[in-house]
Amino acid sequence: MRIIKKIFSNSRSNEDGIFFDEVSKILGFKPLNMIHYRKAFTHRSMNKSDDEGNPMNYERLEFLGDAMLGSVIAAHLFNKVPTGDEGYLTKMRSKIVSREHLNELGKDLNLIRHVESKVSTQHFGENIHGNLFEALIGAIYLDRGFTYCEKFIHKKVIVPYVDIAKLEGKVISYKSLLIEWCQKEKHTFQYDVFEDNGNEGIKYFGVKLKIDNKIIAKARATSKKKAEEKASQRAYFAFQEKINKK
Amino acid sequence: MRIIKKIFSNSRSNEDGIFFDEVSKILGFKPLNMIHYRKAFTHRSMNKSDDEGNPMNYERLEFLGDAMLGSVIAAHLFNKVPTGDEGYLTKMRSKIVSREHLNELGKDLNLIRHVESKVSTQHFGENIHGNLFEALIGAIYLDRGFTYCEKFIHKKVIVPYVDIAKLEGKVISYKSLLIEWCQKEKHTFQYDVFEDNGNEGIKYFGVKLKIDNKIIAKARATSKKKAEEKASQRAYFAFQEKINKK
Repeated sequence: MRIIKKIFSNSRSNEDGIFFDEVSKILGFKPLNMIHYRKAFTHRSMNKSDDEGNPMNYERLEFLGDAMLGSVIAAHLFNKVPTGDEGYLTKMRSKIVSREHLNELGKDLNLIRHVESKVSTQHFGENIHGNLFEALIGAIYLDRGFTYCEKFIHKKVIVPYVDIAKLEGKVISYKSLLIEWCQKEKHTFQYDVFEDNGNEGIKYFGVKLKIDNKIIAKARATSKKKAEEKASQRAYFAFQEKINKK
Repeated sequence: MRIIKKIFSNSRSNEDGIFFDEVSKILGFKPLNMIHYRKAFTHRSMNKSDDEGNPMNYERLEFLGDAMLGSVIAAHLFNKVPTGDEGYLTKMRSKIVSREHLNELGKDLNLIRHVESKVSTQHFGENIHGNLFEALIGAIYLDRGFTYCEKFIHKKVIVPYVDIAKLEGKVISYKSLLIEWCQKEKHTFQYDVFEDNGNEGIKYFGVKLKIDNKIIAKARATSKKKAEEKASQRAYFAFQEKINKK
């Protein structure tokens, strides 16, 4: 009996350890109280309750995370675009925190992989990705406070996705911008796309962008189009930096 | 010439000193960078610009303050009502941050008194009060960060105004609740209302609530009805505390 107990408690703590490592990897810092993250990845179908008998799933955390995301993005836009008036700031924020965009963010982090659910995750709609992303931000707020929410959102949302020129509609596609530039300046270009799934259960695509047969940028995303766009944007910014340094 | 300069610089620093004192009084703590509060009280009709040529008025700060208010109230409700689901939390928050409520908060702090404007403040609509309140929160965020926003909102919004039972519609009026109780328990009651304007330019009413000829609660507000309701609520909570202690 003792041995069985030991095996059970070991397997339990191993599982906790794996969850802790995976959450740390997603967050980029060490979580303090895992209960919030357990909740952030628990679907209502599990019918779990906490010690006080309140439902333990991520739905309430979505509300909290949505609010924190809204205020961090508001502060970023306020500082970044000092010429933008209230209407502009409001419009830009709704573009950044759109349902579609949140789903993309959740999908990119492959949050669904960690969900505990009695319903197969295949039956969830697209919105599960964004909901999990919001819930995760809510959990970060409860665990580490506003400053850590800010850091996380900066790293995972603002740096990789918040491109003011694109949001303003000044740049529709970095791919067309880059192709246009190559044609004008007489450079050859080539997008090498390949499946790059790893063992994460979601289909990913990798792309290598070559200009004059030299790899200029790489990217990985959940569709070919997104991966190409990401690589083009990276190449575009790399070129811009070069031009600015000259 | 030197004397004139001295007089000018003195009168200037006196004015700054008065503004600093008044803002400190409103905030309940010492502000660090007054530029944000100057902006929070500058109407667009002043046509002011900052050093970079960007318009200097409170409109952008409203956007920032609104976001901070939203997330502080979200966190409060999340913790305060652990049984409330997403829909409930969203509904309660919109009641708390309703335009009407924000106007009331701004009016209670008499923020309009500090506005710099070329248009007479009498021409502003009701919403100016709420807009100034939001802008002030935005200024606090820029000056002292999220934690000070939280403290300020806690003191000025949550403690005096966020009454879950009332927001849920379980209590419509503390005055009727109190009167009902007095009649049932055979106590006499009396509301003594008087004008209590001070020198703040807005009409205020004070009320003393007597039960069995003893003053039980006092309150002050911008209408008779509000002052009576506030005093009734205070009396109600005082009685509840007494009953709980027994």
